[in-house]
Amino acid sequence: MVHLVFAGKVSMKTEYTVEIRVRYPECDPMGIVHHSRYFVYFEIARTELYRANGGNYKKMEADGRFFVVVNAECQYKKPALYDDLLQVSIRVQKVTRAKLIHEYQIHRGEELLAVAHITLAMIDREGKIMLIPDEFQI
Amino acid sequence: MVHLVFAGKVSMKTEYTVEIRVRYPECDPMGIVHHSRYFVYFEIARTELYRANGGNYKKMEADGRFFVVVNAECQYKKPALYDDLLQVSIRVQKVTRAKLIHEYQIHRGEELLAVAHITLAMIDREGKIMLIPDEFQI
Amino acid sequence: MVHLVFAGKVSMKTEYTVEIRVRYPECDPMGIVHHSRYFVYFEIARTELYRANGGNYKKMEADGRFFVVVNAECQYKKPALYDDLLQVSIRVQKVTRAKLIHEYQIHRGEELLAVAHITLAMIDREGKIMLIPDEFQI
Amino acid sequence: MVHLVFAGKVSMKTEYTVEIRVRYPECDPMGIVHHSRYFVYFEIARTELYRANGGNYKKMEADGRFFVVVNAECQYKKPALYDDLLQVSIRVQKVTRAKLIHEYQIHRGEELLAVAHITLAMIDREGKIMLIPDEFQI
Repeated sequence: MVHLVFAGKVSMKTEYTVEIRVRYPECDPMGIVHHSRYFVYFEIARTELYRANGGNYKKMEADGRFFVVVNAECQYKKPALYDDLLQVSIRVQKVTRAKLIHEYQIHRGEELLAVAHITLAMIDREGKIMLIPDEFQI
Repeated sequence: MVHLVFAGKVSMKTEYTVEIRVRYPECDPMGIVHHSRYFVYFEIARTELYRANGGNYKKMEADGRFFVVVNAECQYKKPALYDDLLQVSIRVQKVTRAKLIHEYQIHRGEELLAVAHITLAMIDREGKIMLIPDEFQI
Repeated sequence: MVHLVFAGKVSMKTEYTVEIRVRYPECDPMGIVHHSRYFVYFEIARTELYRANGGNYKKMEADGRFFVVVNAECQYKKPALYDDLLQVSIRVQKVTRAKLIHEYQIHRGEELLAVAHITLAMIDREGKIMLIPDEFQI
Repeated sequence: MVHLVFAGKVSMKTEYTVEIRVRYPECDPMGIVHHSRYFVYFEIARTELYRANGGNYKKMEADGRFFVVVNAECQYKKPALYDDLLQVSIRVQKVTRAKLIHEYQIHRGEELLAVAHITLAMIDREGKIMLIPDEFQI
């Protein structure tokens, strides 16, 4: 990971890909990954992007800052199957003062299986909306 | 449930509400229902709407017809908490020859917690798209 | 529920049965309930037994008392299937000062599908072992 | 992996360790991995041991042979936490003509978090018990 510094600001990774092996109980009686499970995969990619930027979501929560999902949308193009090795990608799409929007893609090699968009807001321990911190601004 | 018959067709229920008690492991370290879990709740409502209309999803699968989710979208307004008693509603929004779209709402009493839209297609055992059967046309 | 009072102590229910409909994503590609899911069912029965005795597990946690599982064992006799309506029973087996042991059974009508034993201990917010409170002594 | 050949039989790996990062929704409101989830981790270790021996559980199922859990038991010593990097080990404990018993351990570095034993039987497509194949005999 290359950290470029422009005007004193360390550049941030805005894309990341994790590889996830589909687990047996993530698949339903059709033998395919249940549609609800994709959001678990997306969250893993999101956590790892944050880690790749030197952050730690667990520590962030310990500091009293929590991300909550305010909107989630996924387009399922082809089913993911048991034991598949998937590439789950995240890309920062938009950051405002109140919201953080990522785009996600799931590939199995060359095949695109799903595309999703998830919007996050940040809350404190009392559940009050906070501004998205500078560290997430791109 | 009242079955009205117009021109030989038994009328179909197009709305249904189920009550779901939030389970402990459906909640994450924030103590709220994980966003991925809402789609499990929506599926339960969908299954029960079908049952209320005399259908049986298990039997449908045994007959070689499967519903797959092609698009899912959820707006999360307020968190659902552990042990909450939720009212999960489904309403048929649109039926075309190839797609079936439902709208879902989750209430906790008077409070609206979430609104969602999920689009289904039907496939056969080989994964080929089938037309949505007459029994689902409204 | 009959509350008998002997020597000033209100008698406690020590058995309870809940009915649980098997959900689609609880089943794996074999079409049967994944063995890990049974423990979720058992926890529901445990929570409802506590509620039937006037307790509330959520409130208990808010008061800083948490049950943790220290041992869990399940014998799987016959598979539970998608859409099955299961009777999940719990029975207090033994209570000591430090541990609470329940026996669980899952039936589908007359058929016995599973038998389990789970041992709980109680901890405080710091994770320290607490004595099992009087309200759980039988 | 060294393959030794004795009397024409390639020796089999009987132990394996996988590393698993704890996912957010695997943790409950206590912030610890829900006890039911450990069995998902154990299954991953089991699948990877089989893969390390040149097998493929997915292919095995396609051939009409399925492992079912007949008994599962876990001793929980210390909680696993969100974002922990766990070492999940499996060891073949006993193989009979009808059963396959593995022992599992979960470590977080030096700390032993859990010890488990799971007994498998093999069934065919009709659910009939099969003998444990030679390839699993140690």
